[in-house]
Amino acid sequence: MTQPSPSNLAALLDRDSAQAELFELLRIPSVSSDSTRKEAMGQTAEYLRAKLASLGFSARVDETPGHPVVYAEHLKAPGKPTVLVYGHYDVQPEDPVGEWVSPPFEPEVRDGRIYARGATDDKGQAYAHVRGAELLLSQGELPVNLKFLLEGEEEIGSPNLEPYLEAHKDELKNDVIVISDGSRFAKDVPTVTYGLRGLAYIEVRVQGASRDLHSGSYGGAAPNPINALCEIIAGLKDEQGRITVPGFYDSVIPLTEQEREMWADLPHSDEEFAASIGASALPGEQGYSTLERIWGRPTLDVNGIWGGFQGEGSKTVIAAKAGAKISCRLVPGQDPAAVTKALMDYIPTLAPKGVQVEVIDHHGGQPVKFDLDSPFIKAADRALERVYGKPAAFGRTGGSIPIVADFARILGAPVLLVDLGVNEDGLHSPNESFAQEDYFNGILTSAYLMQEIALASESE
Amino acid sequence: MTQPSPSNLAALLDRDSAQAELFELLRIPSVSSDSTRKEAMGQTAEYLRAKLASLGFSARVDETPGHPVVYAEHLKAPGKPTVLVYGHYDVQPEDPVGEWVSPPFEPEVRDGRIYARGATDDKGQAYAHVRGAELLLSQGELPVNLKFLLEGEEEIGSPNLEPYLEAHKDELKNDVIVISDGSRFAKDVPTVTYGLRGLAYIEVRVQGASRDLHSGSYGGAAPNPINALCEIIAGLKDEQGRITVPGFYDSVIPLTEQEREMWADLPHSDEEFAASIGASALPGEQGYSTLERIWGRPTLDVNGIWGGFQGEGSKTVIAAKAGAKISCRLVPGQDPAAVTKALMDYIPTLAPKGVQVEVIDHHGGQPVKFDLDSPFIKAADRALERVYGKPAAFGRTGGSIPIVADFARILGAPVLLVDLGVNEDGLHSPNESFAQEDYFNGILTSAYLMQEIALASESE
Repeated sequence: MTQPSPSNLAALLDRDSAQAELFELLRIPSVSSDSTRKEAMGQTAEYLRAKLASLGFSARVDETPGHPVVYAEHLKAPGKPTVLVYGHYDVQPEDPVGEWVSPPFEPEVRDGRIYARGATDDKGQAYAHVRGAELLLSQGELPVNLKFLLEGEEEIGSPNLEPYLEAHKDELKNDVIVISDGSRFAKDVPTVTYGLRGLAYIEVRVQGASRDLHSGSYGGAAPNPINALCEIIAGLKDEQGRITVPGFYDSVIPLTEQEREMWADLPHSDEEFAASIGASALPGEQGYSTLERIWGRPTLDVNGIWGGFQGEGSKTVIAAKAGAKISCRLVPGQDPAAVTKALMDYIPTLAPKGVQVEVIDHHGGQPVKFDLDSPFIKAADRALERVYGKPAAFGRTGGSIPIVADFARILGAPVLLVDLGVNEDGLHSPNESFAQEDYFNGILTSAYLMQEIALASESE
Repeated sequence: MTQPSPSNLAALLDRDSAQAELFELLRIPSVSSDSTRKEAMGQTAEYLRAKLASLGFSARVDETPGHPVVYAEHLKAPGKPTVLVYGHYDVQPEDPVGEWVSPPFEPEVRDGRIYARGATDDKGQAYAHVRGAELLLSQGELPVNLKFLLEGEEEIGSPNLEPYLEAHKDELKNDVIVISDGSRFAKDVPTVTYGLRGLAYIEVRVQGASRDLHSGSYGGAAPNPINALCEIIAGLKDEQGRITVPGFYDSVIPLTEQEREMWADLPHSDEEFAASIGASALPGEQGYSTLERIWGRPTLDVNGIWGGFQGEGSKTVIAAKAGAKISCRLVPGQDPAAVTKALMDYIPTLAPKGVQVEVIDHHGGQPVKFDLDSPFIKAADRALERVYGKPAAFGRTGGSIPIVADFARILGAPVLLVDLGVNEDGLHSPNESFAQEDYFNGILTSAYLMQEIALASESE
């Protein structure tokens, strides 16, 4: 039995079963950064392995020094391209947990959307490919050789993936890598993404006195680490919103005129964008449009800050310590290690006297940009047109998939970024969700994509 | 039986009983700002009432819209002055509770110090006066008419004390008010304090987007309330450590040359002071000594800050909101309401676009300064010399007792500030403590003070 030529698979998709299985996956609280959730990580990996094995894949769970990797392969299309699908089964922490309408690990459908931590990032998008393979297999053999690599450490910087890729380089060999881990440009704009920002993530810890002090008895003379931390953070940007870290912009590859024009033509309204996030205005670096700021310019955002008394009422204390998590999104040309080093060198120089500053390197990821003329990108374009009835837009995205650069470097294959979600899904936020329609269309996209990649290889 | 003339009461003091009773008091977690501790507040008040009644005081617990007031009087010295002792039985919150060596509400003696929340602030110091009265009563009648007013809301700004004073103005009438709620200048320097700083305490809340956002998908365009809050806080002081709020210093009464000289003569070493708090340096307003900065100059300190992800590891989020608690210590001439208004007017002007700023007024207190030539201050000087064998120093203190100004205004009596603790007690910090010796000397100081006040009235 061989795969028939491309046909309309939509009528053949078992939506109930596809959703029920995703719910099972979403119920497991696989928060990779939470050391108390280690068991849930193993359960999630085993769930995926068993599913892929049931589809006829040779599937296994590979232990790593951190959370395990699920690897599966189905190699029954001799002479056809080999596709590697990457996804991650770990999720962001669920806090602030009080802001969820329904519990983060009890998936629930409201108004056509599946609400749960990981619904879109990345359990939902990764599982769409699993069900895409299942859909094709229900009609015959797979049109390509297919490999799955599903890791459990994406949300903590994938510390063990690079050594895993190195160790399994031969086994993972492929012609194209497919990743769905982001948001397409808009609900009605199927998108092929050709660039990702990178990341440098640090933590700053400031120590004043060796103990908390009474602000009356000591205020005016004692160092205040919270005030100091605020001074440091405020000093990292100038009044034009530009980052003041020496050398920060030196290696940035500027946006091309072609890119700026292409993006200016995309349907975008600053007013609607601001309204969509409930913001009264959009601050940012002077001289760039909103899309340019998000897709093509580096940033510096404080992701968290703490120190002193955070409870109800008032407490007249000068805290002994304060801290903040700070990250920079990076663009092509910038190197995460170099930016991290520049931050580590510069931040202590901004501290007022009397405080000790420690800067900790959390993790980073390389920015990437791919060739818009690749035949695989064109195959994705056709697959999306079959699902959505319109050609895809070509954009970048502001997020990072730090390991994409590792894939390209170690495995030597181009990476197709076919995002199945939308920004409104609320990645990393309370009440993360994934539209049912997007999940089902994602399954169809995956199936058509495999067919189109097989066809592209025939016409070569 | 009448009180004998001044004699050495030290040999008569029952230290075991005095400590055992203080321990009972410290075991009750009377945190006034914590609404779940309401029952403990009532228990503490009742404990004090019962004790004072057992000494022959007419004692009662008066309910208020908040926590109750303990009032007691012993009026059996016709023709002698009436002394009102004020103290507070509420304590600061115990957090960060993980930093306590022994649990905050299980008092324990280590190396001659009593460790517990409230050990010095103010249960220990207030109870020294109760036991001082008991010591005098064990020898006969009290040499003065004595009133106790012990409130339960000092740590939350005494919202109900002013109306209480107004309502009980006649009953509370007195010749001098005695308060022990602070730290003397140094272990070997008995101190009479003639000035206190005031306080203006606010909370700043900053809102960016209406929900937490992914820092990749939105970073560069979305408002970041944490960065904004840091900009605001950094903007509240200039590089000389001066506060930039318009008009902030306009009404400050400058230090006199006499005060600056008197304080310069006090035994003080910046190096030792910095070492005592484990700080590498002492920042602060340019042009003033450390004592001047603490006693005689206003401040602005952030007491707490929060926003975004504070957990283990990293989370690439742009928070929807952030907040900080900020307080200013005020000096004579400044008005808390006026400073609060100036802060509320100025802070929103420092906010970058895209964020909403709300400023909340928590509480304030008037700064005060008393006449150094008062006969009561001289009586305190003599009482301290009898306990410590040396004359008292005259200083101010950086802390606030917001209701001191209310006492002076409503009851029309001078206030004696006789501090029984030391800075090393760690008021408001984890591991708050009170030296056993200071507690016992405090009991003697209270007893001698009543005798000296009685004598001062005879010589008038």
